[in-house]
Formats: sequence, structure tokens, C-alpha cells
Amino acid sequence: MPRHADPVLRRRQVADALLRVAGAEGLDAASIPRIARELGATTGLVQTYFSSKDELLLFAFDHLGELVNDRVERALSSDSCATIGERLFLGMSVLASADESEQDGEGRIWLAFLARAAVHPALRARHVAGTAAVRDKCRYAFAMASNAGEVDPGLDPGDAALALAAFADGVALQRALEPELVTKDVARGLLRGYLDRIFARQH
Amino acid sequence: MPRHADPVLRRRQVADALLRVAGAEGLDAASIPRIARELGATTGLVQTYFSSKDELLLFAFDHLGELVNDRVERALSSDSCATIGERLFLGMSVLASADESEQDGEGRIWLAFLARAAVHPALRARHVAGTAAVRDKCRYAFAMASNAGEVDPGLDPGDAALALAAFADGVALQRALEPELVTKDVARGLLRGYLDRIFARQH
Repeated sequence: MPRHADPVLRRRQVADALLRVAGAEGLDAASIPRIARELGATTGLVQTYFSSKDELLLFAFDHLGELVNDRVERALSSDSCATIGERLFLGMSVLASADESEQDGEGRIWLAFLARAAVHPALRARHVAGTAAVRDKCRYAFAMASNAGEVDPGLDPGDAALALAAFADGVALQRALEPELVTKDVARGLLRGYLDRIFARQH
Repeated sequence: MPRHADPVLRRRQVADALLRVAGAEGLDAASIPRIARELGATTGLVQTYFSSKDELLLFAFDHLGELVNDRVERALSSDSCATIGERLFLGMSVLASADESEQDGEGRIWLAFLARAAVHPALRARHVAGTAAVRDKCRYAFAMASNAGEVDPGLDPGDAALALAAFADGVALQRALEPELVTKDVARGLLRGYLDRIFARQH
């Protein structure tokens, strides 16, 4: 890590190093000394930017969350796709760790953060807010699909959004643990099958 | 912890203490000294039964897996339920952390183990075997339902089992992180909705 760098860039480099270490060795392994070693820097230099592992953890979680949310947002608002079902499919592929830009190991890092968030109030609050934002977007998409007659008019958009987000999380979880069995293609096939059952009703 | 006890019982007591600490504070916190304190025992005594945290971790994971598998098995083979759909619902309620006997915090422990399993080969192998066993049972149930005309004859039992297990995992994940929003009742409603879409086809 070069000695003279923009602090914003520097903090991001430190967060990226944490994500790399967490993906390969788990979040427990990502101590400040281990991250410093990953960057070829001293522990003291890392501590200039993050005074504790906790602060670094929150920053890295936000950083990862922003990357994923941007991808979901882009997919859901894509103009090139004709149907709402197709846009939901692309957005959920991001959450299910099955979109084109998905990096190897991202699902393991996400799982490590979630396990930490379950017992860490500040991380959990961020996760809850991010999840609520995703569900809102899905609910809006289902409401539009309902108005457009693309789904059963009896479908509750809120319930459908909650269920779809749970399904995408479950696929992501299985991909993180069994990437050989639940490949990107298998994950996409699962999402396709799920959405087809909801959107095919009217055909 | 009494000094003179059956070694099998003693090992189980140590594993239970690990599960309690992991549920409340996360798996990182569950060190051998912390577990000894939880039991009111010395570190040395705990080390008589488990020479490393790793050995203890594997034992506790197996212990938790057996408890859950027994409950799934009982639910799936239940005689009191008329339909295969209903038996699948009960079995998946166990996996989704939404059955009657579900203990508070079990989902958090499961999540902590999964995050560890993603970067720990021996734990991961156990998880993969357990997951395969669950999917086999679901595939068998879907094949029976197909023969009995309870589902669309075009349904692939293997695909349906993979998708259902992913859905149950996603619901469990959301319950572990948002127990106030995704209550047992909400989780059961999600599973019911999911299975109804598959089983209602023929009505």
C-alpha cells in the first residue's frame, strides 16, 4: 500500500483487503494485523484509518452492501427487458450470487457478515435496512405486474416480495456452501422456475 | 459441571455450552476458556474431553445436525397427516426455524456454523452430507406426490427438492436476522404459500 494516498481511497483499499481475507479464511481471520500483512503495510498504518476492527467491519459491510445494491438497482430498472418478471429475475440473480458480475467468494463473505450481524446490533441494523430496501423494490415490481395483469390479481405484493427475497437468500446461501452443485446456471434455473410459477399464471 | 460424570454426557454438556455461548455472543466468542466459564469448570477439564476448539466445533455441529434431522424425519414420516404436501410443510417448518419445538437462538447458531463451514473443509463436508439427505427425502416426497397426482406431472422431483430446500434455508436465514419481522407464523405462512403454488395445481 503506497504511503501517500487519498484517505477515501485508502479506506477502501483496507476494506477490500478485509473482504479478500474474509473470503479466503473467514471473518475471524481478518484481524487488523492480518489485513496489514495482506496490504504489505504496518498495523499502525491501518489503525490510522480504522481505530478498531469493529469500525473496519462496519465500513466493509457498507462497502459490500453498496456494490450489491447498485447492481440490484441497475438490474431492476433495466430498460432493455420487456417484462417486469424479467427485471425481477435479473435483480434477484444479483442477490442469489448468480449474476454475470458475481465474483468467486462473495457469497462466503456475505455469509460471514450475516453470521456476525446476527449477534452485532449495528451490523444487524444495516442489514435490516438493506433488506427492507430490496423488499420495497420487489413489492413495487409485483404491484406493477399486478396492475399490468402479468400475475394473478389475488397476489399480495408485500407477501410476494418477502417470499422472493427469502428464496434469493436461500439460493445465495446454498451457492456459498456448495458452489460445485449450485452453480450460477443452476441458481439462475431455480430463480427462473420460481418466477415462472408466479408469472406464468396468466398465460 | 460435576467432576464425576459419564464421558458421553459430559461431551454433550460441553457441546450444549458451546451452542449457548454461540447463540448469545457468536461462534468467535465460544473459546474453550469461555465455555469452561459457562460450565463453571476449568479450561483443563474441558480439554480432557476436547483437545481443540476444532474438535469441539465438529462435535457440536454434529450434535445440532442430529437434533434437526430427527425433527425433520419425524415430520416427514408423520402418519397423522393426510397429504404429502402437509408432511413436506411440517418438515420444512423445522428447516425454516418455524416448527413448534424451535428454540430461540437456534437460527443464529446455525448461521454461525454455516459461515464457518464455508471456509472449513471438515465442517463443510458434514453440511453437504446433511443437506443431501434432506434433499433426498424431499425428492422422494415429490416423486410420490407426482405418482399420486397431487402435483403437475411435469414437475421434476429433483429440481423441486433443491428449490424447496433453498426456500426453507432463506426463510431460516431471515428468521435468524429479523425474528421480529419473520416470526414463526410469518415463516409458516411463507412455506404454506410456496407449497400451495406447487400442490394446488391439480385442484
